[in-house]
Amino acid sequence: MIDTALERLRRRRTVVGAPLCLGIDPHPDRLPGELTRDVAGIETFSRGLIESAGQHAAAVKINVAFFEAFGSAGIAALERVRGDVPDDTICILDAKRGDIGSTAERYAEALLGTLRADAVTLSPYLGEDAIEPFLAYPGRLVYVLARTSNPSASRVQDLATDDGPVHLRVARWAAERWSDGSVGLVVGATAPEELARVRAAVPGPGFLVPGVGAQGGDLGAALRACDGAWAPGVVNVSRGIAQASTDDDWRSAAAAAASALRERMGEAVLHSFASPAPAANHGGS
Amino acid sequence: MIDTALERLRRRRTVVGAPLCLGIDPHPDRLPGELTRDVAGIETFSRGLIESAGQHAAAVKINVAFFEAFGSAGIAALERVRGDVPDDTICILDAKRGDIGSTAERYAEALLGTLRADAVTLSPYLGEDAIEPFLAYPGRLVYVLARTSNPSASRVQDLATDDGPVHLRVARWAAERWSDGSVGLVVGATAPEELARVRAAVPGPGFLVPGVGAQGGDLGAALRACDGAWAPGVVNVSRGIAQASTDDDWRSAAAAAASALRERMGEAVLHSFASPAPAANHGGS
Repeated sequence: MIDTALERLRRRRTVVGAPLCLGIDPHPDRLPGELTRDVAGIETFSRGLIESAGQHAAAVKINVAFFEAFGSAGIAALERVRGDVPDDTICILDAKRGDIGSTAERYAEALLGTLRADAVTLSPYLGEDAIEPFLAYPGRLVYVLARTSNPSASRVQDLATDDGPVHLRVARWAAERWSDGSVGLVVGATAPEELARVRAAVPGPGFLVPGVGAQGGDLGAALRACDGAWAPGVVNVSRGIAQASTDDDWRSAAAAAASALRERMGEAVLHSFASPAPAANHGGS
Repeated sequence: MIDTALERLRRRRTVVGAPLCLGIDPHPDRLPGELTRDVAGIETFSRGLIESAGQHAAAVKINVAFFEAFGSAGIAALERVRGDVPDDTICILDAKRGDIGSTAERYAEALLGTLRADAVTLSPYLGEDAIEPFLAYPGRLVYVLARTSNPSASRVQDLATDDGPVHLRVARWAAERWSDGSVGLVVGATAPEELARVRAAVPGPGFLVPGVGAQGGDLGAALRACDGAWAPGVVNVSRGIAQASTDDDWRSAAAAAASALRERMGEAVLHSFASPAPAANHGGS
């Protein structure tokens, strides 16, 4: 029996001692000077970041858009990059897919089958039809978008209903429907009040918190909110590690930035994640 | 100066005389018996459908999930399939992407750059940040999901706000923000009342209407609602054409099914699309 992604994330969180998620978002215009601005460049950059900084991370989140941009050659590179994520580290493919049932099955096959992701990000706009085909792959994790980190996130996500804003309805719905820890939520650190409010409303799910660093999100708020009662969370940092240096020392600079973040995060969350895993909560599906 | 996708869609609608959109959703378990259930099979099937039935269609909508499922080999097949769509026929890549600005730029490069789509489907959950990078490619069309055709569409899309359900807020927002015909809406035929209500609320945008046929949607409601004042719409049919026969005659059966649908649709919409294009509405962006 292979361990579930949730069990492996718990173990890795304990080893690393921090919820650091290494974000791989290789834009061809933001590569170190020594690399070519093409698919070979983004592959070398991604693999170098995982090799140098991955040791400090509980999870690696790969943004598939940056590979898709190069067509089939980009996806071939993604297949190799994904293979570099060590088995003990959770590989999250950030794809934000959301489609009707039969199509969602094929996206699940793409991300969880062909690319063997441990976890994916998904959009809630089409409801459970877009989520459940991913849960049919046993032992994986899904992070449903609740409140994202971008400037126009409020457009749809903050629309007021008679029972709170849309993003809170999404969070409550997901937490009520899937209470075994396999479904977490994406809640951005750029809206710290919403982040705290979502955590207060749904104590169970682990959160994937983007937006710290270049996007200006609040690291303290992210660390306070990321862990749930059912599952530990992760706080994603992309540019804060990847852009630590654009000179030839980018590998060692990324490793040093990740190490510093790990230490800083570890001190802040130590007290909140010291308790043993709540085993009674993981029976359902 | 190359014609915009909107101009080409108008012209093709006039030539075909019907809003038929040929949906390419090649599931390996639903291929004709003579084809292998692998990436070669879905490529042969897709190219055969475009070659035989495409002559009756105003647009071809390719569902990228069915290619992504096969990884880089699948995307390489998609690149060849896309190349088969004739220049006078609009190629819609149905991808339902929705991500933050810098990532949306890379998805736009993947779909509109590398794969040269004329149009894409996009999710509104992240607001305009997820849409605008696609509009930076001049002359393309975007279809924003408003009310989809799947069973759990109501979960988020029908949440009540003080000014109508979420999907109507999305439709009004998109129509107010982008009034030059370049942004249409996806509104499913499986919810004919919502479809009519969205059309009444936003007379301008063209609609991409899925859900007719296997999903049980209402063809009459789809035809009445699809065309907008700013842009003609399209009504997607996938299995009704692709599954016309699973024997060796699948090509001719698909062509016959598409021809029959074209005739049936053409009679119904003839009166509503006889007026000239409203040129005064296409200046903005």
